[in-house]
Amino acid sequence: MKNRVCELFGIKYPVIQGGMVWCSGWKLASAVSKAGGLGLIGAGSMHPDNLRHHIQSCRAALTQPDGLVLPFGVNVPLLYPQIEEIIKIIVEEKVPIVFTSAGSPKKWTPLLKEHGIKVAHVVSSSAFALKCQEAGVDAVVAEGFEAGGHNGREETTTFCLIPAVRETIEIPLIAAGGVASRASYNAAFALGAEGVQIGTRFALCSESSAHPAFKTRCRGLKEGETKLLLKKLAPTRLVDNDFSMAVIEAESRGASAEELTALLGKGRAKAGIFEGDLTTGELEIGQAATMVRKEETAAEIIADLVS
Amino acid sequence: MKNRVCELFGIKYPVIQGGMVWCSGWKLASAVSKAGGLGLIGAGSMHPDNLRHHIQSCRAALTQPDGLVLPFGVNVPLLYPQIEEIIKIIVEEKVPIVFTSAGSPKKWTPLLKEHGIKVAHVVSSSAFALKCQEAGVDAVVAEGFEAGGHNGREETTTFCLIPAVRETIEIPLIAAGGVASRASYNAAFALGAEGVQIGTRFALCSESSAHPAFKTRCRGLKEGETKLLLKKLAPTRLVDNDFSMAVIEAESRGASAEELTALLGKGRAKAGIFEGDLTTGELEIGQAATMVRKEETAAEIIADLVS
Repeated sequence: MKNRVCELFGIKYPVIQGGMVWCSGWKLASAVSKAGGLGLIGAGSMHPDNLRHHIQSCRAALTQPDGLVLPFGVNVPLLYPQIEEIIKIIVEEKVPIVFTSAGSPKKWTPLLKEHGIKVAHVVSSSAFALKCQEAGVDAVVAEGFEAGGHNGREETTTFCLIPAVRETIEIPLIAAGGVASRASYNAAFALGAEGVQIGTRFALCSESSAHPAFKTRCRGLKEGETKLLLKKLAPTRLVDNDFSMAVIEAESRGASAEELTALLGKGRAKAGIFEGDLTTGELEIGQAATMVRKEETAAEIIADLVS
Repeated sequence: MKNRVCELFGIKYPVIQGGMVWCSGWKLASAVSKAGGLGLIGAGSMHPDNLRHHIQSCRAALTQPDGLVLPFGVNVPLLYPQIEEIIKIIVEEKVPIVFTSAGSPKKWTPLLKEHGIKVAHVVSSSAFALKCQEAGVDAVVAEGFEAGGHNGREETTTFCLIPAVRETIEIPLIAAGGVASRASYNAAFALGAEGVQIGTRFALCSESSAHPAFKTRCRGLKEGETKLLLKKLAPTRLVDNDFSMAVIEAESRGASAEELTALLGKGRAKAGIFEGDLTTGELEIGQAATMVRKEETAAEIIADLVS
């Protein structure tokens, strides 16, 4: 399949691996890019120095015998406290592609594009997709309610969001949220997308840096075993465990944002996803985990999707 | 398109009009069936005598010059207090097709099938879809989180639900929730469905018995203007208005089921949908209302979907 998303990023298949905290370092990103998709390093869980290391390692892994480098990118949550330093490193290291999220596309897009970087921005509504187009981004990722981790407030599902965004913007559109099988891959294109961004299935594959216990827990989750919680802070889709049950209990009795912030504390996503604390960690994964049942490599995922 | 859903119900196109309270009387159901889909009378908002009148009127409208009657059906929420009387009327009036929901498919399926009635049951999970198959229903409707009105507790979206149910059951599968455009119609089939059940778009068409003010309010809603509320009672997707804001406020401070029951009171769905009370009525519609923008007939909807 050749289309605008393939042409924009110089990739073989319109499959983007979502940048995910504690899952997508250089190993996952380079494996996806080698297999013909677009791998993204997730900067959201990295200190700036660590990000530089991942970028350099990814570039080394993707450098071909003739010196050409296969495309790869970095996902940057724009609300990151060290955002200026992150952007500086991305420019210095000549990262070719940046996916931004969680913030306004207006602030950084012009600078990134001045340096010849392709920019995509992640949104959860048509209104924000239009702002992205006006800000000059090259592509929009529209992510539905079923996605894992941080999520939009409108709760619009992929099935309703993609056709609405398609009607709203002219630039290339990438569907995210719930895409995990060949059927959903094909459905995303039927809805009007020109590419897909896949988080959950890549988060659970061999090259993901997530803890093996997290991967095992998430593979083959039952329907309803993830829930969108912490809506008074930033809505986040979490797997059922002791922590999520405590959140549900607190929210059910009307806990304030302050109380939820205290309950959340610090470092829970790292504890859950990277260190494998399945009981009190924050386990971020999408609804599509119900369809992921086996250990597989990034290359096997891409081959399955595009076969 | 000819497939198992068309063959099962004897219809031209695999398009079912969802049975909806205060919207789908004999006028809408017969208009859909005349256009080649399957129209359903929604028994959920009808007194038994009124249901009998609608069945007889629907049959009369669908009787062809040669005496043959085009297929139509009745949707029955099984938790209906007068369920025994409703089932008796359906059998007496020789309704050919029944869609059941909100209850166990085990209790009434055998009786309905003894009378030669085709039975489909509406579910929101794979586990319940399997129970339906075991109970002997002829088809399953799997309805995602984006659907209007009463909704499943698992919050699984159409995009994730349909492939999961497809893997679980052998019998015909009908997708519901978010299907409103040709793009989403095609996507439902890509996900593995063999037919679609459409509520929202038919609820807002000319033959729907909903109040004109309700239809106007719902057409072209903005994303995020419906919300899944009343989760401590039965989760229900409602349009933003004074009533829904009061529910959100109550839920935010941890209101109990008892308090929510009192706040809901009686007759709000009728007031909102049928009588056009847009401020304090209960306005039930799906997320797909964002894609419905104009006055149109049931026949125009079906022609657009299958063109």
